[in-house]
Amino acid sequence: MELYPAMDEINNALKKNHIIVIFSNCNVEYSGRAQSFIAKGDRMIIMKHDGTILVHKPDGRTPVNWMPNKSIIEIKVENDSLEITCTNSKTSEVMIIRAFNIYSITSAPLVDNEQLRLLGTEKDMSDMLYSTPSLISEDFTPVSREEQTKYGFLDVFGHNSKGELVIVECKRYTAGLDSVTQLRRYVERVKKSKGITKVQGIIAAPNISQNALKMLTDWGFSYKNISPPYRFSKEEEKQAKINEF
Amino acid sequence: MELYPAMDEINNALKKNHIIVIFSNCNVEYSGRAQSFIAKGDRMIIMKHDGTILVHKPDGRTPVNWMPNKSIIEIKVENDSLEITCTNSKTSEVMIIRAFNIYSITSAPLVDNEQLRLLGTEKDMSDMLYSTPSLISEDFTPVSREEQTKYGFLDVFGHNSKGELVIVECKRYTAGLDSVTQLRRYVERVKKSKGITKVQGIIAAPNISQNALKMLTDWGFSYKNISPPYRFSKEEEKQAKINEF
Repeated sequence: MELYPAMDEINNALKKNHIIVIFSNCNVEYSGRAQSFIAKGDRMIIMKHDGTILVHKPDGRTPVNWMPNKSIIEIKVENDSLEITCTNSKTSEVMIIRAFNIYSITSAPLVDNEQLRLLGTEKDMSDMLYSTPSLISEDFTPVSREEQTKYGFLDVFGHNSKGELVIVECKRYTAGLDSVTQLRRYVERVKKSKGITKVQGIIAAPNISQNALKMLTDWGFSYKNISPPYRFSKEEEKQAKINEF
Repeated sequence: MELYPAMDEINNALKKNHIIVIFSNCNVEYSGRAQSFIAKGDRMIIMKHDGTILVHKPDGRTPVNWMPNKSIIEIKVENDSLEITCTNSKTSEVMIIRAFNIYSITSAPLVDNEQLRLLGTEKDMSDMLYSTPSLISEDFTPVSREEQTKYGFLDVFGHNSKGELVIVECKRYTAGLDSVTQLRRYVERVKKSKGITKVQGIIAAPNISQNALKMLTDWGFSYKNISPPYRFSKEEEKQAKINEF
């Protein structure tokens, strides 16, 4: 691709705030968090509408060079290369990409308002069950959650309408044999310490293994299919805050 | 873009080990380091020849989802979406991308054998000057480097052919007034402690500010234009090691 038409195409896409992907043979000089140089090679340059710029090698996860958002891009043709100068006045960083061959330029106005949601932890599960006990049963009244006892850490602890104690053990992933033995240990110890014979044991998990389910029912306990609640990722929240500046 | 032709195009590019960039409206489900979900939005999907997969939002530096190298990609058309399943048996991760609209597919056989080189530290500079003293002068013989003295940390310490002591202060970036006063302090203290009157002071740096240069020559010291040596980035070395497995 000729350098001048390439320059015009990139400048037009920048004006329209498009995301731009350039495949090119280039070298990259960078100064800021460190000073670095990478000699000529085929790379992918990504320019985002918020001023983030990434330079990726054909392999590997992390960009070989990058500039944070709010970077300013200036392009000129200099001898045999397209010189792309990216500066960030806030972070005092400069990256100069010299593209000697431009293989392709792809750009588009992408729109994405969604945030990543992470599946919650076991604590999120017990919080959810404590505030919405009907997920376990209409007959369940929670009394405490995440109670540290001398026999361990009870996720949700409560009673049913007959006044029988109920222990709910939350598992984020598939519950296995160890989950059942853990629940059994809690139930046995609560029975012994309170001098009672009836304690309901429930495992709440998005899945349970076949042998764990058999052991669970053999012991007179029950399984409730419940997934942890989703929550927004901290990474996204942090990014949102950074962008607010 | 129709889903079946899109599937064929991606599969062909995967077979050729090309780097592939897909602009699409998609949702992403992930399970591995955590469990996550992001609802429909416009995103950029990057597939690299080493099996690394990145999903980028139109803004921000970090991918919203990613899979490490050696991931396996399987594609099928499922109802109204192109379902791209990425699995990594080594890390037990699974990412499912459901692309409802494919705006563009760009692919190319990029080749990049270059490694990022970071401009060295002041220690790298003093190591370089110690092993190649002619960079300072043909008349310079180094005796020690990075010597911890009671007056501070001498970068390179030596003598000239007349037997006069020489102190070289290395600066990675532009040397300023503080570099000159630091050098002066070292020189004065060495003079005093050894009871001598002649000690040569040299600042080695890739650049020096105008007022620092004036102060330096006023004090009878000199400036040598020397840049720190480049070295390969640790990040790259680490990646190389991971890839060797």
